[in-house]
Formats: sequence, structure tokens, C-alpha cells
Amino acid sequence: MTLVSRDPILLTPGPLTTSLATKTAMLRDWGSWDAAFNAVTAGVRRKALDVVHGEGTHVVVPMQGSGTFSVEAAVNTLVPRDGHVLVLVNGAYGLRMAKLAQMMGRKATTFVTAEDAPTTPADVDRLLAGDASITHVGLIHCETSTGILNPLKGIADVVARHGRRLIVDAMSSYGALPIDAREVAFDAVIAASGKCIEGPPGMGFVIARRSALEASAGNCSSLALDLHDQWVYMEKTTQWRYTPPTHVVVAFDAALDQFLDEGGQPARHARYARNCRALIDGMAALGFRPFLDPAIQAPIIVTFHAPADPKYEFKAFYAAVRERGFILYPGKLTQVETFRVGCIGAIGPEEMQQAVHAIADALADLGIAEIAPRAPVARVA
Amino acid sequence: MTLVSRDPILLTPGPLTTSLATKTAMLRDWGSWDAAFNAVTAGVRRKALDVVHGEGTHVVVPMQGSGTFSVEAAVNTLVPRDGHVLVLVNGAYGLRMAKLAQMMGRKATTFVTAEDAPTTPADVDRLLAGDASITHVGLIHCETSTGILNPLKGIADVVARHGRRLIVDAMSSYGALPIDAREVAFDAVIAASGKCIEGPPGMGFVIARRSALEASAGNCSSLALDLHDQWVYMEKTTQWRYTPPTHVVVAFDAALDQFLDEGGQPARHARYARNCRALIDGMAALGFRPFLDPAIQAPIIVTFHAPADPKYEFKAFYAAVRERGFILYPGKLTQVETFRVGCIGAIGPEEMQQAVHAIADALADLGIAEIAPRAPVARVA
Repeated sequence: MTLVSRDPILLTPGPLTTSLATKTAMLRDWGSWDAAFNAVTAGVRRKALDVVHGEGTHVVVPMQGSGTFSVEAAVNTLVPRDGHVLVLVNGAYGLRMAKLAQMMGRKATTFVTAEDAPTTPADVDRLLAGDASITHVGLIHCETSTGILNPLKGIADVVARHGRRLIVDAMSSYGALPIDAREVAFDAVIAASGKCIEGPPGMGFVIARRSALEASAGNCSSLALDLHDQWVYMEKTTQWRYTPPTHVVVAFDAALDQFLDEGGQPARHARYARNCRALIDGMAALGFRPFLDPAIQAPIIVTFHAPADPKYEFKAFYAAVRERGFILYPGKLTQVETFRVGCIGAIGPEEMQQAVHAIADALADLGIAEIAPRAPVARVA
Repeated sequence: MTLVSRDPILLTPGPLTTSLATKTAMLRDWGSWDAAFNAVTAGVRRKALDVVHGEGTHVVVPMQGSGTFSVEAAVNTLVPRDGHVLVLVNGAYGLRMAKLAQMMGRKATTFVTAEDAPTTPADVDRLLAGDASITHVGLIHCETSTGILNPLKGIADVVARHGRRLIVDAMSSYGALPIDAREVAFDAVIAASGKCIEGPPGMGFVIARRSALEASAGNCSSLALDLHDQWVYMEKTTQWRYTPPTHVVVAFDAALDQFLDEGGQPARHARYARNCRALIDGMAALGFRPFLDPAIQAPIIVTFHAPADPKYEFKAFYAAVRERGFILYPGKLTQVETFRVGCIGAIGPEEMQQAVHAIADALADLGIAEIAPRAPVARVA
């Protein structure tokens, strides 16, 4: 350990590494009642809506807390008390959406596929045809548990054809992967400040279909998470209903401006794709194999099989890579030993290559030589 | 308007003016899974507990979101599904606690006194004696609607004597007014980062009696606001359950360190009392009269009667004072025209005197000459 205090680069799915311009935006205090701050809130709402081309059909309602708070707010507000949510699950975040729906007293059923298998539109078609009581479908666009991408457009089309409503947890995809409200029918797309827009964590937001939100008064059993009430109050006063995380909001606004300067979603996607390519290529040269098939791998976070070497132990590996300036993320699979590396944040392919070098040095240091998983790789049942 | 961009001083009850040391603590990105960040969380929890001398009896559970999110989490987790909360109301925050309890399906009744009349221990004694079904009492320590101080110790003693449980919204008092868990019996004291500890807004926390929290598993109908689950997970992993507002947490930790360096709660109280004195004296010299009797005025936020002059209009007054560098707060009373001035934040009596000068200049500029309210002052029914 040297005495140098350089901030490590976060290769995690949020919080992530933010730009200095984003962080320095937090060096001011704002009155939450003041017109100057309300103008920032209005700007955030407008820019966040533009990302999905939602003008005219949808509105952005920001919500205090982590992304999960916004997911719960969307479900509790948009699903009527006697509604029935079908949640499509291939990872921890799908399970979480089902759990929060059940805890608040909504009927929720799950359709579970393996963690390396996307839900298909055909699955959803069959399920909706078989159960007329389902009012809403819950989908995780990019499931951070593995980094798998689910087919949003195909599923949205099926849900619309059946006359049901779609709620999308787009936490890890919003801003990086295309979501176009003019082509994809959804009642809610949910994201957060500390993900692909590269702001600090502390607030989420729901991009809600205006007509669905208008019809949702009285549904919510939580005061703090009542999205309808939050929206009505914000429209009337331009203010947040309860104290907003002012510094986070202003930094998120700065991050949105940088996102637009970079070229918006296509440019963000292109950079993350370069990051992902540099990472996977570099890791492959070391012998690492990704858990997912490339066809379903989103360029957001990559799950790698752990080295086969019996000397491998995640904690020591993590510490050795961290000492070299990079923070990895643990795996989240129960059947297979893995670790994860994020491709998102204010970083480019250079940082990914440096991370690969750091991983190589750490492995050498720890005496870990056998990298490739022993065939056949176990698949999650 | 000059072109100088100096940040205005916030004379508001939070968000408030924070120190530069607190703001610069936000200039780093932290991994929410990393040991370095978990050590910060542990430090925050320990220091926040020490403020109320809760070691051994209580635990601190932080919660994402504004203070209201923590109030809702405490009520939803600590009050059983078949519990009954009596909420003592003399302002908007009491009404809010009752409303969130009702929305989540708990039985909640209110005892409402005038906004300039504290609830008395005798009131509570009579109410509890008359209704054995009441399991919990909800109290707002310092009601920000007016700045009124309710008698925490006396009410806590009565609640304990009746064998009921006390939940205290201490949002505006925690850190500034004495709360001693060794002398005051409570199951929950709730506060937030952006109040008298002088951190940025974005997280709250509940100081919960350990035995009550242990007995609360399964009570909560919200996943995001499940205080028991948040606590169990944090104890097991040292991490937050869902993405924490990392920058806010670290800045709150820095604010706690500055709070301790200043001399803790007694020193913070003394400074705010000096601020309050300077404000009330200065305003009295201009002809302003506080809404509350000095005996029940907490040195947190002061409600003043609006000038009697027919030329007075809050919006123009606010703008004229803001141009001079100070941000005031609107009144929250329905029966009487008022405005509020906060005494809290990283400011001293000098700033309060300057604020009074700015108010005097603004009044002169607006041609407002008649300041004192016309007697008799209307009392809230």
C-alpha cells in the first residue's frame, strides 16, 4: 500500500464514478422552496423525459430514495388495489419487484426463467392468454444480477396487444440503451440518478404515462411513495412534496447536461459498448469467460466465471485489485461462482484496459494461474 | 441585481446552509459495497446514537429519502398491524404522521390543539386513561409549522406510566435540543441529515429501541421502508440494503464530526439560541412580533406576523430579501398571515443581524412602513 490517496475507479453498477463537473455541482446549498431550485427540478424532468421521447404522452415524477423506492412507488400507485401483476423474473431485481408488490398487498405472480435466459415475448403471450386477471406486467429491462438484456420492445408489443399495462424497471439501461416511448408502449419506466446518466445516487424517477397516472389517485397505501400525490403537488407548486436531496438533484442535472453534450443515448451506448468490448477482450486474453452468451449481454455490467484455481477467493482478489485502484463487484448467482465488472460511469476503454492490467497483476500476486472455468460450465437451473 | 454570484444564506428549516467542509466531503465517489464506505456508515450510526446517549438500549437505522420516509418507516415497522396510534397534533407535521399511519392501514386518531398551544402531559394522561386500545403515541418534538416546542419529557413519562410506546418526530430538534434516552422513554426518535446536524438532505434515520425493533419483524407493508429488514441486513453485512446516497452519507458524517468538534448538542443549542435571540431582538426593533409566546418558542425557526401594511405581499418581500442574500421561508398557518425565519445551519448571530438589516432595507425599498400586526392578534382556533 502506498500513501497516495487517489480515488479508486468504481467498476460497479452504481454508485459509479462520476465526473468532476458533476461532483462540484454539489458545492452549493439550495433552498428547496426557491425558484432557482425549482427551475433545476423542472429542467431535470424535461431532460429525463426527452431521453425516451415521451413528450405529450408521459411525465417524469422524481422520487427521493434509491431506485427501489421509485419501483415501489410506481407499483403501489399505478396498480389498483385489486390489480394483478405478473412479474417476469430472471434475477434478483425481478424477485424484488414481486416481493414489494406482495408486501403492499397486491396480487403478484412470477414467471421465472434461468438467470442466463431472457424472457421471450412468446412466454408473455402464452401467460397473458391464460390469465385474464393479470392487469400489469413487470419487466426488468437489464437485470443487474447478471447483466442480461430482456427484449423490451417484443414484450411491450405483446402486453399492449393483450390490453394490459407494462411497468419497466430500467434502472441499469435508461440513458444507455434505446427506450422510445413512441414505439414501446409502457405505463412506467423507472430509473435512478446514479446509473447510466452518471449522477450521484439519492433519487429515482418514474416516467409515467400521463393518463395512467391521472387515473391512479387513491391507489397508493404509502404517503411517502405516493407517486400521484407527488406529481399533483409538483405540477401545482413546481416544488417537491417533501424535502428533496437538493445537492443530488443539482448534480444529476449537471450529469444530464454532460450526457446531452456527449450526444445523448446513442453516444452513451457507444462508449459503454467500447468499454464492454475492451473489458471482455482483455479478460478473454487472461482466460476469463463471461457467464452470458454475447447475444444477450448488455454493455452495462459483465458477469465473469471465477477462476477455477483453488487458490481463488473473492475477498482477497477484490482487495488486491482495489489496491491497484479499481473496485469490482461481487457475483449474485447462487449456483455458480462469479464476479461482476461494470462498464458504466465517467470512464472510457482506457480505464477498462487498465483494470484488466490490474486484474492480471493481482492474479500473479495471489499465485492464481488457472483462470478458465473447468468445462462443462454449470448452467443455472 | 448585480452580477455577483454569492450563494444566498438559507434561513429555512432544512435544507440549510452547510459548511464548506461538509460540501467538499461530496467530492469523492464511494463504492457502496466497499469496506471504506461501510466504515463511514458505521461511524454515522455510532455518532448519531451518542447524541441521545442511546448506547445499550437503542440502535440507529439510517433510511434513504427525506425525513418523512423515516417517519413512515418507523410507524409502519414499529406499530403492529392491529396497533392504534394516537398522534398529538399542533401543526402540519402531526397531521402528516396521522395521515401516513392511516394510509398504511393502521388505526390512527388525533388530538389536535391550537398551533400556538403545546400538547400537555395532562392531556395525554387523560387520553390514554380513556382508551386502552391505544398502543403508540406519536409526538412532534418541535413542530416546524410554527416552531413550537412540545414537552417531550413530560409526555414520555406519562406514556411510559401507561405502558404505551412513544414515537417522536424530532426532525427539527435532534442535535440542537436535549434528548436523552437514559431519561426519556421512547421506542423511536426520528431525524434527518439536513437539519440541526447541518448535513445535506437525502437521508433520515430512526433511533429505535432495540427490543421494539427486534419484535417488529413482519409488521411493515412496504419493502423499501421496512426498518426491521434494513436493520437486520445492515447488522449482518455492514452495508445498506439498497443503494445508499453515498455522497450525502459521507457529507453527513463530516457534519457530525464538525458537530462534535463544536461541542455537541449543548454548543449547537447555545449557538442557535444566540441566533434566535439576535433575530427576535433585531426584528422587534423593526416592529415585528413573533407568533409564539417566548416560553414555547424553540430556537429553530421563528414565525413572525406579516406586516400589517396593505402594501405587504410575501412574494415581493421574499424576492427583495433574497436579492440581498437571504432566503426566507413562507408561513404555514391558514388563519394568520405569517412568514418564517430559520435560526439553524452553519451560521451565527452575525448572519442573523445581517438578515435583519436586509429585511429592513427590503421593507424600505417596498415602501412598507406599518410593521406591527394590528391588535388584537387573531389566535388560531
